[in-house]
Amino acid sequence: MKAFTIFGGTGDLTFRKLLPAFYNMAATKEAVFTHEIIIIGRRDYSSASYRQLARNWIKKFSRVPYDENIFENFALRIHYYKMNFIDKEAYRRLNTYYAEHNLTEHIFYFAVAPRFFSIIATGLLQVDNSNEAKVILEKPFGEDLASAKALNTQLEQTFTADNIFRIDHYLGKEMVRNIQTLRFCNPIFSNLWNSHYIESVQISAFEAIGIGNRGGYYDASGALQDMVQNHLLQILSIVAMEWPEQQTELFDAQIRVLKALRPIENIEESLVLGQYNGYREENLVAPHSRTETYAALRLFIDNERWWGTPFYIRTGKKLNKREIEIAITFRPAFLQKAPRNILIIKVQPTEGVYLQFNMKKPGDTDEIIQAKMDFSQDESHHRLNTPEAYERLLKACINNNHIWFTRWEQIEVSWQYINRMQEAYKKAGLPVYLYAPGSSGPEEANALLEQDGHSWLEVPGK
Amino acid sequence: MKAFTIFGGTGDLTFRKLLPAFYNMAATKEAVFTHEIIIIGRRDYSSASYRQLARNWIKKFSRVPYDENIFENFALRIHYYKMNFIDKEAYRRLNTYYAEHNLTEHIFYFAVAPRFFSIIATGLLQVDNSNEAKVILEKPFGEDLASAKALNTQLEQTFTADNIFRIDHYLGKEMVRNIQTLRFCNPIFSNLWNSHYIESVQISAFEAIGIGNRGGYYDASGALQDMVQNHLLQILSIVAMEWPEQQTELFDAQIRVLKALRPIENIEESLVLGQYNGYREENLVAPHSRTETYAALRLFIDNERWWGTPFYIRTGKKLNKREIEIAITFRPAFLQKAPRNILIIKVQPTEGVYLQFNMKKPGDTDEIIQAKMDFSQDESHHRLNTPEAYERLLKACINNNHIWFTRWEQIEVSWQYINRMQEAYKKAGLPVYLYAPGSSGPEEANALLEQDGHSWLEVPGK
Repeated sequence: MKAFTIFGGTGDLTFRKLLPAFYNMAATKEAVFTHEIIIIGRRDYSSASYRQLARNWIKKFSRVPYDENIFENFALRIHYYKMNFIDKEAYRRLNTYYAEHNLTEHIFYFAVAPRFFSIIATGLLQVDNSNEAKVILEKPFGEDLASAKALNTQLEQTFTADNIFRIDHYLGKEMVRNIQTLRFCNPIFSNLWNSHYIESVQISAFEAIGIGNRGGYYDASGALQDMVQNHLLQILSIVAMEWPEQQTELFDAQIRVLKALRPIENIEESLVLGQYNGYREENLVAPHSRTETYAALRLFIDNERWWGTPFYIRTGKKLNKREIEIAITFRPAFLQKAPRNILIIKVQPTEGVYLQFNMKKPGDTDEIIQAKMDFSQDESHHRLNTPEAYERLLKACINNNHIWFTRWEQIEVSWQYINRMQEAYKKAGLPVYLYAPGSSGPEEANALLEQDGHSWLEVPGK
Repeated sequence: MKAFTIFGGTGDLTFRKLLPAFYNMAATKEAVFTHEIIIIGRRDYSSASYRQLARNWIKKFSRVPYDENIFENFALRIHYYKMNFIDKEAYRRLNTYYAEHNLTEHIFYFAVAPRFFSIIATGLLQVDNSNEAKVILEKPFGEDLASAKALNTQLEQTFTADNIFRIDHYLGKEMVRNIQTLRFCNPIFSNLWNSHYIESVQISAFEAIGIGNRGGYYDASGALQDMVQNHLLQILSIVAMEWPEQQTELFDAQIRVLKALRPIENIEESLVLGQYNGYREENLVAPHSRTETYAALRLFIDNERWWGTPFYIRTGKKLNKREIEIAITFRPAFLQKAPRNILIIKVQPTEGVYLQFNMKKPGDTDEIIQAKMDFSQDESHHRLNTPEAYERLLKACINNNHIWFTRWEQIEVSWQYINRMQEAYKKAGLPVYLYAPGSSGPEEANALLEQDGHSWLEVPGK
């Protein structure tokens, strides 16, 4: 029988994302989902009491309407197993438990802090068939290039490289998956998708919330590690990659973009870090912390397609909105004075496409006005039918579909690039600029774009 | 003092279009409109009784809300002058009337059947300063190339060429005027505006109504003369022209397109004419009339920009809708299976732009769905502020702005081309195909496009 074992089964991720995703798969009769769910935690639950708890979370977070009958059936597949996963002896008992229940085919989900990844992987060497098991890991994958390499080596002692599924849940987002279709299946865009026609690309990931209770984790990482190295470089590489003739070439296409990122010469022209006022008073944050809660980057891709088009990335916490979007600004036609054509791929919270172009102002005038076309698809009737990121990622792993997970080489190359930026920033003695909560970040980030004659896009009334 | 004299002052055009347009100009305090309006008709009105009549029409057709005070002031400028304009002697009396009222600067509007154009023009030779006067003529300008040439010669005996304003009220339509901005001020379109990227262009002018009481005029002309030679070739030439560096070069740019129209070799591959069932029973229509109430054309423009892109035109009466639109279909990118990108410029009844492109179907699939973006601007609050075609054309004439009137050479070239098609059609003995009222025209028109592997666009749920 198949087992899907979750380490960290009493954590937020399990309750908010994983259990609802499994429930949705059960409710929609997803054929490939035939697993028993083994919840591993240190707390004192019985399977029965855990199921009661699970019911409440699923009621709250499931995308399909809650149905008691469906839940009752589904809940029978949830089994709580009390275990302290840092106790090496415990894995032998776990192996016995699996054997007793005839659970021979495994998927392990590491929904725990990254520092436990190695420990669990080593422990699982004691479980039968773990060399054939799949493992799903939450980000971040390492804290820098060296630790990521060490972790990878460690994991590969237990699992084969092909069975390691590194989650980047941004890859499960509808509009991130849509970038390829938008780019390559629309001649009105695909024919213009290069530096001759695209003036700049802006990738923004705004968060309105602060770090909450995650200070312990966050203060040791920061925005570059938490958002840029993984999610935003993923998006950048999909936006910029060459057409992968087959889906299996997707990673190669993305990695080629990352490898073509121009080496940083003047770090002050390429990176601005910020920290929101009050961050140092947050729980578990060092009183003199220099950890950035905001990062803005100006990158170039040195290949034929993108020569001369800057890619701007910005992300931060406690900003003025919660929004992820990719803005493509086209170069003007020969009529320089007309406002730019802008295509925005809206990832979050709205999913859709926004296009801004020029028309004549109605009436007896040749004045130009901006026309705004908006295509959004997150109405509730649609949301109901759209699996959320985790649901599709779990399914992809079960189906052995690697396409929407991160390859080791991507991680390696992006860590390398980000680490070099971090080092250069530190070496240059550049400050971490303070910004007001609720603002759009430190003003110093504007200068990054002003050197190119550009500015951050704030599309009014979009 | 300035006079704006309307011949045909008791006709539909005057009541429905011209008087409301003048009223709107008065109501919006249009500075250039300082004219006395001289209404010429054969019927027995006093200025007072005509003004009463005018009030009702203006109430009904003015775009700005009717205001009694504004009308009272405006009405004082309307003067009824009874005259039979085919009476040559009458013009001397008209000249005396002008002199008595110190009306020395003239604009004449020929809102009469085209057969009277020459008669009135000749009569006006007896009016002082008519050689400096402007004249506005309604379409059609001639019934074929020969009669158009004769008319032009006749007109130029009274008026200077620059003072002849030939109305093509399609040129006053908001979205026809907008084509230039859309094409040239949007790099996402302008960079693709040629046969490498555009697969076909369709220009459609559907009318739902029949010929009504206009059988006398219509049966002697037909769809090619009534719609194609003027309005639709105007639109085609604006869609296809090269960038006119200055607005004064607009006509040259348009004429170059018309001159580049590929000479017809096989007329049956280029033209389909139709007639609606019941047309021959209409008032004032010949019982065996072969006059077409529908025409579909397949044209090519033999220049570098358009080599290989067919332009399809269709227009007809008693069709399934009232709609004018221009549809630009882009060639597929390398992914042949994806539906085409389509840009539709909506001229009537809705004004706006519609764009159809491809997205990934939401969910765990790579299926392609069509996204539809619609930008419309004919909400009532906007309509209020948009001068209608006639209003802006009257103003343009007063301002001596020729840009939105038809040049003689355009008429000459388009008549030449249409006449040749008509002759070839007749010579080939091709039938005028019957079609059912309320349909989209004769089925035979489909074959015109099928030879290119295309079909008429019927965008569902647009």
